[in-house]
Amino acid sequence: MRLQHLQQQLGSCQSLLITEPSNIRYLSGFTGSAASLLLTPQQAFLITDYRYTAIAQSQCAGQPLAIICRDRAHESLAACIARLHPTQQQLLCEFDHLTVGFFQQLQQCLPAVSLKAAPNWLAQMRACKDADELAATRQAVTIAEQALGWLLPKIQLGMTELQLATLLEQKLFELGAEALAFPTILLSGPRSALPHGKPSERVLQHGDWLLLDFGAEVRGYRSDMTRTYVLGAASTSQRDFYQTVLQAQLAALAVAGPGVSGHTVNAAAQQVLAASPYADYAGEGIGHGTGLVLHEYPLMREGCDAILQAGMVVTIEPGLYQAGFGGVRIEDDILITETGIEILTQSPKELTILCN
Amino acid sequence: MRLQHLQQQLGSCQSLLITEPSNIRYLSGFTGSAASLLLTPQQAFLITDYRYTAIAQSQCAGQPLAIICRDRAHESLAACIARLHPTQQQLLCEFDHLTVGFFQQLQQCLPAVSLKAAPNWLAQMRACKDADELAATRQAVTIAEQALGWLLPKIQLGMTELQLATLLEQKLFELGAEALAFPTILLSGPRSALPHGKPSERVLQHGDWLLLDFGAEVRGYRSDMTRTYVLGAASTSQRDFYQTVLQAQLAALAVAGPGVSGHTVNAAAQQVLAASPYADYAGEGIGHGTGLVLHEYPLMREGCDAILQAGMVVTIEPGLYQAGFGGVRIEDDILITETGIEILTQSPKELTILCN
Repeated sequence: MRLQHLQQQLGSCQSLLITEPSNIRYLSGFTGSAASLLLTPQQAFLITDYRYTAIAQSQCAGQPLAIICRDRAHESLAACIARLHPTQQQLLCEFDHLTVGFFQQLQQCLPAVSLKAAPNWLAQMRACKDADELAATRQAVTIAEQALGWLLPKIQLGMTELQLATLLEQKLFELGAEALAFPTILLSGPRSALPHGKPSERVLQHGDWLLLDFGAEVRGYRSDMTRTYVLGAASTSQRDFYQTVLQAQLAALAVAGPGVSGHTVNAAAQQVLAASPYADYAGEGIGHGTGLVLHEYPLMREGCDAILQAGMVVTIEPGLYQAGFGGVRIEDDILITETGIEILTQSPKELTILCN
Repeated sequence: MRLQHLQQQLGSCQSLLITEPSNIRYLSGFTGSAASLLLTPQQAFLITDYRYTAIAQSQCAGQPLAIICRDRAHESLAACIARLHPTQQQLLCEFDHLTVGFFQQLQQCLPAVSLKAAPNWLAQMRACKDADELAATRQAVTIAEQALGWLLPKIQLGMTELQLATLLEQKLFELGAEALAFPTILLSGPRSALPHGKPSERVLQHGDWLLLDFGAEVRGYRSDMTRTYVLGAASTSQRDFYQTVLQAQLAALAVAGPGVSGHTVNAAAQQVLAASPYADYAGEGIGHGTGLVLHEYPLMREGCDAILQAGMVVTIEPGLYQAGFGGVRIEDDILITETGIEILTQSPKELTILCN
């Protein structure tokens, strides 16, 4: 269905070369790491090598595409594409993925063919999830929330970030995650001010921030949530800092919905942060679509004019990051519905003091 | 040191833009996923965003480079590079990594600058490991071999591939792996004929092949080894199939050494496979360099004229893959020395029957 839908958009005088692995998975079901997908107006070819041919035949069974094992014939990928591409047509390519080196090889093998940037078709198709994609996403969210609920009572002062991250990750797998959605970000104390830090040997202490940003992957689809806690007791400044982020997050949730741009959702949160004493510590952008890759179209960011539509799954995750003091991020996964939003992640967001 | 070495190669009239993350890590120590490194004859800039600025400052401390946080000033990456790049110089780029889309943005921001393909400097620098890199690699090999030794006596008929893979992976982490070198390939019975298959719910049975291809990551460096076993009892055809691969692997090890090309090492193994009754089932290529990424320069493959040199770490992994019957691959990591090779992986390779 997805292949045919794209072929309809192609019309009769151009072909499309897909090289981005998650786009190939989305269109064909193939999950290996080495393949190209060539769509002509009449045909579809999945070009791979001997390592993946049997897997491709099994994963793409029933799809209207031919599996080509290229390296057995010692044919270069560019030469193989050139052989399959109908002459005198344009070839649309993913310029945001295709490398300059491969582009040059292709152009050499297809001297008479015009290589053009493909429109944004795939990002837009992928942004709106179908029932199967939503079911996988919901399952990934459920696994993440169950793991978090299991972990929270186990957290004790004296444990390290790495110990806690390992416990959390093992639980995610035990609950059915096929993979981590991304390397777990679990940071304590001032380290929570690192938006993309890695867990370390730092020991949890009384008064620490504890930030957890993590997710599960189910059938390729990801959850992505962040919660931030305080250990032992929260200072007045911690409470105020936290409430500012929470208000920003709620403000973004309040405006998100079908027909609203990513720019507008971002602005709603940024206005709250900018009006606070912590304006200098706000992150850039407050969310992104998520699916077969963690960060995908549309972005909730300044200048992003993508319009939210029913079926999109996006994160809403404003944060404040003050070096030396710490960081707070609160992140939900939401589904855009016909009439508004459904917040998929349901773990409490009111400031919670652990280990007290 | 590495930065200065590259700057010497640059000379005085060109700059170099590094966008490949493992090259950036190799040169600067920065491990985040979003950065670019611009080297001019006089200066070095690590350009990143607010999420990674504090991490970059810490990881690159002591390096002669300036950390630029680009997005706080709402400057595009291409505009930022254009601002820092000295006028009237060539800009060398990694054409095998740079996307066509970003190339076009860069050219627009630097209309008078010639953007050229960078020579193979980094692949060649990275191929020869220094003492720290070798120590990390040896540790990754030790972890993998200890985990395998621990796992073998635990294998029982009736277990699934996924159960075994999970046990193995947990042990790798317990022994100190920071990450898996790659998703574990653990395949049984006819599934072993999938060169890059994923573990499934298939249950281990008497007479099965069992193929394990796995590795650990330590400080960014990887081990990568494969062993294939038979469960219960081996048929005559299994024994013959296995011995053919083993002879091919030993033939490649016998010729590998400094001054020998990847092509020659591959040919030594392929000759054995081609002369056997199983010629049609041989894989393409029999090895690759390994380090900060799993597959790196040099390749042991037909037509690869890269010459092995002391300090390189490469895999030697011929295989036979017969659909319906099964696959055998035997893979060692070897270090090229001044006088020959050191085989890093020491687990036995004689055909071993498990669960008997």
